[in-house]
Amino acid sequence: MRYSHLFGKTTSNVTKKYDSISHELLMKAGYIDQVAAGIFSFLPLGKRVLARIESIIRDEMNTIGGQEIAMPALQPKAVWETTDRWNSVDDLFKIKSMYGKEYGLGPTHEEIVTPLAKKYVKSYRDLPLYLYQIAPKFRDEARAKSGILRGREFGMKDLYSFHENRADLSSFYTKVTDAYLTIFKRCGLIDVKITEASGGSFAKKYSHEFNVITPAGEVDLIYCTACNFAQNTEIAALQKGDVCPHCTKGSVQIDKAIEIGNIFDLGTRFSSAFDLTFTARDGSQQFPMMGCYGIGTTRLLGTVVEVNHDEKGILWNRETAPYDCHLINLSSDQEKHADAVYRTLLGKGFEVLYDDRIEISSGQKLMVADLIGIPIRLIVSDRTGRDIEWKSRTDKKTRMMTVAQVIEKLSLKS
Amino acid sequence: MRYSHLFGKTTSNVTKKYDSISHELLMKAGYIDQVAAGIFSFLPLGKRVLARIESIIRDEMNTIGGQEIAMPALQPKAVWETTDRWNSVDDLFKIKSMYGKEYGLGPTHEEIVTPLAKKYVKSYRDLPLYLYQIAPKFRDEARAKSGILRGREFGMKDLYSFHENRADLSSFYTKVTDAYLTIFKRCGLIDVKITEASGGSFAKKYSHEFNVITPAGEVDLIYCTACNFAQNTEIAALQKGDVCPHCTKGSVQIDKAIEIGNIFDLGTRFSSAFDLTFTARDGSQQFPMMGCYGIGTTRLLGTVVEVNHDEKGILWNRETAPYDCHLINLSSDQEKHADAVYRTLLGKGFEVLYDDRIEISSGQKLMVADLIGIPIRLIVSDRTGRDIEWKSRTDKKTRMMTVAQVIEKLSLKS
Repeated sequence: MRYSHLFGKTTSNVTKKYDSISHELLMKAGYIDQVAAGIFSFLPLGKRVLARIESIIRDEMNTIGGQEIAMPALQPKAVWETTDRWNSVDDLFKIKSMYGKEYGLGPTHEEIVTPLAKKYVKSYRDLPLYLYQIAPKFRDEARAKSGILRGREFGMKDLYSFHENRADLSSFYTKVTDAYLTIFKRCGLIDVKITEASGGSFAKKYSHEFNVITPAGEVDLIYCTACNFAQNTEIAALQKGDVCPHCTKGSVQIDKAIEIGNIFDLGTRFSSAFDLTFTARDGSQQFPMMGCYGIGTTRLLGTVVEVNHDEKGILWNRETAPYDCHLINLSSDQEKHADAVYRTLLGKGFEVLYDDRIEISSGQKLMVADLIGIPIRLIVSDRTGRDIEWKSRTDKKTRMMTVAQVIEKLSLKS
Repeated sequence: MRYSHLFGKTTSNVTKKYDSISHELLMKAGYIDQVAAGIFSFLPLGKRVLARIESIIRDEMNTIGGQEIAMPALQPKAVWETTDRWNSVDDLFKIKSMYGKEYGLGPTHEEIVTPLAKKYVKSYRDLPLYLYQIAPKFRDEARAKSGILRGREFGMKDLYSFHENRADLSSFYTKVTDAYLTIFKRCGLIDVKITEASGGSFAKKYSHEFNVITPAGEVDLIYCTACNFAQNTEIAALQKGDVCPHCTKGSVQIDKAIEIGNIFDLGTRFSSAFDLTFTARDGSQQFPMMGCYGIGTTRLLGTVVEVNHDEKGILWNRETAPYDCHLINLSSDQEKHADAVYRTLLGKGFEVLYDDRIEISSGQKLMVADLIGIPIRLIVSDRTGRDIEWKSRTDKKTRMMTVAQVIEKLSLKS
């Protein structure tokens, strides 16, 4: 994509105050646009990053046997009454049709996936079953804040699992935990705390959250600096400075964190509500045990920026960056060479953002590239001749390369 | 995917009456599930076809310079008041938040895309601009019907264009028309009528619809059997049997048709409402001319089935089929061979649906394959030995091939 044609250019004269760094950087760099409090559009750059994050999630969900489906946002009132949640889920947007029908606008999909599974699950041979989707979700939030970190409409991957017994559910629960850590790592989030939390409105028993410590967070997290122990302060009986009950070595800290994923053991709460039964191995009729596993995709995108940035802009990794590389021409005499490099890279199947503008200063172009944050930068200038300067976003060193060398190095995964 | 693991098996004992053949076939073959009138889930097979259709659309939109974005479904009341449409668009779902805010649930996105463009379009140099998205849409339909042909929640690609002047809009309008015909052809719809229609609630002037003639349609189309002339009967002054006013040779017929796409010349209706102006070449401030171009993605999927099926089931083409091929093992003695073929094909990057069930009769497996409708079938049986029988869905002839020959033939695009 030629930057001259890209919709959503960076803007430096943003005077508005933002309550999170991710909101500020994503707005300034042209990734997102705010429609209203908690409601955003994703511009071409933002949509590309979101698609790459979704692709990572899809990969890992398929690897553990997940089957992708698509469920509707419009959910009939009747299914929410079946689970007694029409009036108990605080943040459910409710819609009344002109024709008298009432719907909830899905903040979650237990009420849809359980009756769906009921149509096909008859015997233990149909279990386990893992269904997921990646779709918009809606929550009637009292206070939307921090840009895409807490929205009224947001992207989410939600996975639902159905099992013969608790042992099978537990073993899958562990698999999802591992898959989640892989997803977050691939997105560039290394330090993710697996946190014990209460089940919220979903389950009576404990659930687990995946939290990232950052000042923009809104969860109070108590965690050990020496081991993996972490608890949501809502359920923790500990105080700052206490000895960690898990490793008994470290002391616990309290900091703000963002919840980027969660897993719930739902038990038979929903299968019993919808009378979803299966014939067990012993011939008896039983309710499957269910699990539910969420990742907020747009929140994850925001969190990556919250954690991975410097004073100049965003720091994507190669898997999440909107383009494989950012080609920048700094010389009006080198236009033909830069154009040829651009076409060659496209021809080799690379996705390239190409700053082809000639009326803009070199300093301005490099500032824009820093703000956008693609990790690999290819510079054409008066001094590169027929070659190209390779520079990583975070490294001051540059390396002169031939086009063939660039292609070879871009083809390496890392 | 092993059919034994696939969620959403075919079901033959559907006694319910459906009002369209696509609804019946998609339900029976396990592509979709009905949640409520006009509201559907897409099961794994359906989700895969939808993804392939979306990919075709994305391809063709990118080819004509479209930039993909994602806009929200929740649209503040204020923007609908700005265009005087809060009370005039019949099928707008309205939501009132617990916290007093009011939203429309987007049936279309002029109210979002125009203010968005206003933030970035300043000069004629920023034009033309083509923005599109593929996203759920919502309509408070009095009567949802015919399965996914007319839903309350449905998938849509909507493209919006912004131009310096009408000549530029007209030339892009033609480009989109061509792109649409390419999309429909790639999906397997060859006979698509480009129809003159009234602008509906969007525009005063004529617009164009893309219609496919089929008994499940709900538009009355008057069309010439000898040339391309077609008009929506709402605006037509002709009657059945009249001489075609376009070619003056054929006579016109009237039949039911499904509208799978539309294009509107919006003029400055929305740019003026939002005071979106640009500095023209002569220095004056002007409103850009806008166009709007829709394709219902889920309706397109349904229409393909409506048109392309036989008495046994669905007839996908290679681009829209949920899998590249359907591998069927008919012999309990050949399990190892069939498994090896499956793994080999996966290893070569093909997407394979593999009917690995041994407790099911050959006749039943072939019936299931006919119903699902993947165009290429690979059969392993007692008489295939180390080879495979290649059979197309619509051809009675089969051809014995080695695995290497199968791979070679699958790699050919058509």
